[in-house]
Amino acid sequence: MSKPESKIGVTVIGATGYSGAELVRILLQHPRVKLEKVISRTFAGKPISQIHPRLRTNLICQGLNIEEITSSIVFAALPHATSMGIVGKLHGKNRKIVDLSADFRLQDTTIYEKWYGLVHQQPNLLRKAVYGLPELNRDKIKKSCLVANPGCYPTAAILALAPALQKNLIEKEAIIVDAKSGVTGAGRKLTLTTHFPEVNENMNAYQVEGHRHLPEMEEELSKLSGGKVQITFVPHLIPLNRGILSTCYARLRNSLNVKEIQDLYTQFYQQDPFVEVLPVGSFPQIKEVIFSNRCRLGLTINNTTGWLIVISVIDNLGKGASGQAVQNMNLMCGFPEELGLC
Amino acid sequence: MSKPESKIGVTVIGATGYSGAELVRILLQHPRVKLEKVISRTFAGKPISQIHPRLRTNLICQGLNIEEITSSIVFAALPHATSMGIVGKLHGKNRKIVDLSADFRLQDTTIYEKWYGLVHQQPNLLRKAVYGLPELNRDKIKKSCLVANPGCYPTAAILALAPALQKNLIEKEAIIVDAKSGVTGAGRKLTLTTHFPEVNENMNAYQVEGHRHLPEMEEELSKLSGGKVQITFVPHLIPLNRGILSTCYARLRNSLNVKEIQDLYTQFYQQDPFVEVLPVGSFPQIKEVIFSNRCRLGLTINNTTGWLIVISVIDNLGKGASGQAVQNMNLMCGFPEELGLC
Amino acid sequence: MSKPESKIGVTVIGATGYSGAELVRILLQHPRVKLEKVISRTFAGKPISQIHPRLRTNLICQGLNIEEITSSIVFAALPHATSMGIVGKLHGKNRKIVDLSADFRLQDTTIYEKWYGLVHQQPNLLRKAVYGLPELNRDKIKKSCLVANPGCYPTAAILALAPALQKNLIEKEAIIVDAKSGVTGAGRKLTLTTHFPEVNENMNAYQVEGHRHLPEMEEELSKLSGGKVQITFVPHLIPLNRGILSTCYARLRNSLNVKEIQDLYTQFYQQDPFVEVLPVGSFPQIKEVIFSNRCRLGLTINNTTGWLIVISVIDNLGKGASGQAVQNMNLMCGFPEELGLC
Amino acid sequence: MSKPESKIGVTVIGATGYSGAELVRILLQHPRVKLEKVISRTFAGKPISQIHPRLRTNLICQGLNIEEITSSIVFAALPHATSMGIVGKLHGKNRKIVDLSADFRLQDTTIYEKWYGLVHQQPNLLRKAVYGLPELNRDKIKKSCLVANPGCYPTAAILALAPALQKNLIEKEAIIVDAKSGVTGAGRKLTLTTHFPEVNENMNAYQVEGHRHLPEMEEELSKLSGGKVQITFVPHLIPLNRGILSTCYARLRNSLNVKEIQDLYTQFYQQDPFVEVLPVGSFPQIKEVIFSNRCRLGLTINNTTGWLIVISVIDNLGKGASGQAVQNMNLMCGFPEELGLC
Repeated sequence: MSKPESKIGVTVIGATGYSGAELVRILLQHPRVKLEKVISRTFAGKPISQIHPRLRTNLICQGLNIEEITSSIVFAALPHATSMGIVGKLHGKNRKIVDLSADFRLQDTTIYEKWYGLVHQQPNLLRKAVYGLPELNRDKIKKSCLVANPGCYPTAAILALAPALQKNLIEKEAIIVDAKSGVTGAGRKLTLTTHFPEVNENMNAYQVEGHRHLPEMEEELSKLSGGKVQITFVPHLIPLNRGILSTCYARLRNSLNVKEIQDLYTQFYQQDPFVEVLPVGSFPQIKEVIFSNRCRLGLTINNTTGWLIVISVIDNLGKGASGQAVQNMNLMCGFPEELGLC
Repeated sequence: MSKPESKIGVTVIGATGYSGAELVRILLQHPRVKLEKVISRTFAGKPISQIHPRLRTNLICQGLNIEEITSSIVFAALPHATSMGIVGKLHGKNRKIVDLSADFRLQDTTIYEKWYGLVHQQPNLLRKAVYGLPELNRDKIKKSCLVANPGCYPTAAILALAPALQKNLIEKEAIIVDAKSGVTGAGRKLTLTTHFPEVNENMNAYQVEGHRHLPEMEEELSKLSGGKVQITFVPHLIPLNRGILSTCYARLRNSLNVKEIQDLYTQFYQQDPFVEVLPVGSFPQIKEVIFSNRCRLGLTINNTTGWLIVISVIDNLGKGASGQAVQNMNLMCGFPEELGLC
Repeated sequence: MSKPESKIGVTVIGATGYSGAELVRILLQHPRVKLEKVISRTFAGKPISQIHPRLRTNLICQGLNIEEITSSIVFAALPHATSMGIVGKLHGKNRKIVDLSADFRLQDTTIYEKWYGLVHQQPNLLRKAVYGLPELNRDKIKKSCLVANPGCYPTAAILALAPALQKNLIEKEAIIVDAKSGVTGAGRKLTLTTHFPEVNENMNAYQVEGHRHLPEMEEELSKLSGGKVQITFVPHLIPLNRGILSTCYARLRNSLNVKEIQDLYTQFYQQDPFVEVLPVGSFPQIKEVIFSNRCRLGLTINNTTGWLIVISVIDNLGKGASGQAVQNMNLMCGFPEELGLC
Repeated sequence: MSKPESKIGVTVIGATGYSGAELVRILLQHPRVKLEKVISRTFAGKPISQIHPRLRTNLICQGLNIEEITSSIVFAALPHATSMGIVGKLHGKNRKIVDLSADFRLQDTTIYEKWYGLVHQQPNLLRKAVYGLPELNRDKIKKSCLVANPGCYPTAAILALAPALQKNLIEKEAIIVDAKSGVTGAGRKLTLTTHFPEVNENMNAYQVEGHRHLPEMEEELSKLSGGKVQITFVPHLIPLNRGILSTCYARLRNSLNVKEIQDLYTQFYQQDPFVEVLPVGSFPQIKEVIFSNRCRLGLTINNTTGWLIVISVIDNLGKGASGQAVQNMNLMCGFPEELGLC
């Protein structure tokens, strides 16, 4: 390492939401990144350090002007529907894009249209997009110029279930994912649901009848398992800022013991620097992963019913969003996968 | 109501723990109760208002002296194992006892011994005890002189599942109860797990490999359903003071629609003043029930998998402990069931 | 108590904000109140139990129609400026009104106009209004038909300082009130400041250059002390739902010891059921008063500087708003002062 | 930067408390540090990543064996009294020590003995120690081999008041410091006061009659101002994990306007990378500094009373403890002051 390595130019669109600001925080410390532009329609003209004083930078938020974006890497941290049009215009020109919205996650446009209530405007581009979960799709991500960064719930659930489904350990049609999320997962938009006195000292299930992250889990896990995976998914809102804990339940197909399953999980993730499978008898906690890009998994078999239980924790803004987006950038740029991440 | 009604003398043993103090708070406002003694070994000699300044009373904590307890009603809010000996001595003498410990909840002493690790000292008395869930055992409670007040998790889970099991709607051997509890559920004893900086901004599953409240759920629900009910139960610790939210998952045996099930639930609880079944499409939140004796239930059928989801909320110190204990006292004394409760 | 006492009809205008809903909660349990109408423009037509499920009542929110309000007692829990017009129309007709807004609290209209930025529309009515702090103005409140219910910060600060100022113990021009409030004090209106992830794990001073509750404190304490009281007041937002803790600092004029001052405070409040002066060496905590109408005071003299420190705690929705409003109603109606309050 | 710079060996004694673990976290990312040993009597033999899973390292906690400590730099994060003996044995041998306890902070041993209740065992070593607040003592720290790292409250208060006192703007004998701290400030030791359900939804003043951090503030500020500074200091416990917000009040000696004072503060700290003076009209919040080594200051003059108000925020584990300890190490070792800190 005898000479300083060159830096790559990066733009973040939608830099002042929670995911966008976390991206900026990580990118400012990344040794191979020069953060060139931060774009925010709402706060154009203001220093981003005024909106998020934790960010130590002189960068000024700019309005969105596609032509003025010249960076090699662009992160889009925008609402779905908005994102697909902008990504469509940015694409090409030897540029790599990581899109944090849902717009390029579902390969089946009819499913997209069913869950998001609108026709997909970029079906051709969609076919080029890679689902950005490095633990499943590392090689494709490395060659891709458009990565669809996974949702926070799917990241936690897929990592919890992938080894069991790939190795055909569990039944595919009776999987339960009971997920608990901190409030940043709901974004920075004001709602009564996220008004402090309504959330504090409270908890609740929401979108019990169907949450948009469900098809994403089912699509990826079905691909992996070679069959139709069906999940009962219930997300819950918990009074804390960051973190998702997903408790996953599935019926075992074979009579394996817990150590055998733990071994299979450990082997499945042996090349993955950010996923840790805990020893038998240990279970992960949210505080172990917040402000990091890590996912920790603990598992057991219930004595009475014989069901498999897998518990997965991530930071919804880390491995569940911005950390994973930078992990994807590292892969796309040929950097070491862990660079600038913790 | 032309003349004031007489009051009944009450003693609370273990009055300074969270359940004990909540009992004292409720009993001080109860129109038919004269709170005669509050007993606390740890704080004997001190005014209880010094330990819990919210309690407006001049009562002084006393040491435990069985002979000096002359009240007609005694609440024992003691640790298991300790409780059974004391209840054994108090029993008889025309007295009614509500025991908040686990000691008289399980009719099968081998199960008690397996889960609690000690031989039951009062098997004869155990046979006289009634499991104090009024919604299932109201008539027996009315005639009983020893009520075993249910655990907080079993209360939430049994109320969520009883109608479905009694009416044979769901399979008995694949039920999942994912429960989330506030920290008072862990009691007032100091542990690193409940040290503020360890719980705050954190959450975790605990006793994933087996929690003592499981056999209680299985025993009561098996009785009700006429078959062996098997539950996968995972409790979680959530950073808030009071409240349990249980998300229950079960496979439906018949193809009922959600409205039919909601009707069956509503009918099941039509005589129960403290249980509310929400309209289809509504789901309950913790904040709706804290500081009350209420349980609220919401249910749906998952579109993809067809599994039944029932969500149940209670205050772990209310319907999950002290509120329910007073509800049981009301029944045992022939008072209106809702008296002094909200 | 040989016959049931008659109930008095009550209307609450602005019933769905935090103060309004707390008023409804207290009034539903009040033995002499028949709650006739709950008025909410935003939620007209909906059951109030749907907006605030903790409220067990069938009352439906109604729009505001002055002519249809026939209750003897009206509580107005409305924003300032809005309130004064409505109270103006309601006044008279043998009716008693408790106004929870700031509109009738300041007798000096030029001060009102300076701080609230608008001309007072009801100067004649203002002269009839009594500042509803029972500990200072009990006799006037009893005879009044319009009570201006104090602000939450002024309640905590005035009760902390009144004895010292009335007895001329402290200098009038160098008093500091450092107040810390839970988030319900900021109301139910959505703001970024009260968005959960912004408040949780955060705290901040606000309106450091001048908060509208300051003139209210100064006016009442000046009246009491017979001189111009000047206060440096800084409010802080703290991540909890309910409660104000005010730490007040003042320079003593005479060399009294702490026991003498504690005696004077105790004597000052000896007739006041809701104010408690703690023994020397004890200091109050928020948790002792939440969900109650109580104020607890602790005091000491700083060893180094000789300054007096008085710490005061209340529930901002209890003694700081709705509890105190009911205490005022009790006085206005000739009921026992503590009736229906805890 | 054409060749990699050498790393320096570091040992942390007391590595598993909150300050110790935060030190380890920072040191693991520091580009010039090789963390050689982590010492914890309680957890000797266990990987520190098992006690604090956020720490990604294979280091095993060791028992304390003075002879085996060979690092050039030692951090002692131990309780007072314990620390002074160990530091006494470690001192010398061309080694630099940063002591995070109170044992070497007070130059006047009679004051130490009064507040800590024991005779100082190392008076000679005490004379060599430098009070490790770089903004006041940078040059002395650079030359020192024993730095007494300041307490968290003194750091926040001294930085808030130093410019005003050094420039003789305020009266010395009537300063008020009202400080609010998160719960990690109370350490990892279990107490009822820091049991989750007791702190959550609560707040309280503590040690109102005298807190040990007071003499530290007074000693340093007296030195700086050339006169006897007297402070009324009240600390408060707030339900959040990290952060101190100190609101400081002082009477101005001269009639300066707020802009002039803000200019003097800005000038005072112009060489200090971690202290920021906000523009007039802005005030800092805790969330801006947590997980950093920064201190942010906002100030104003109260309109009514003319008192100066200065608000100061730090992370009690960052600038209030471990961040500052690393800043001191950077100075002692001739590294850039900001290296490895944010």
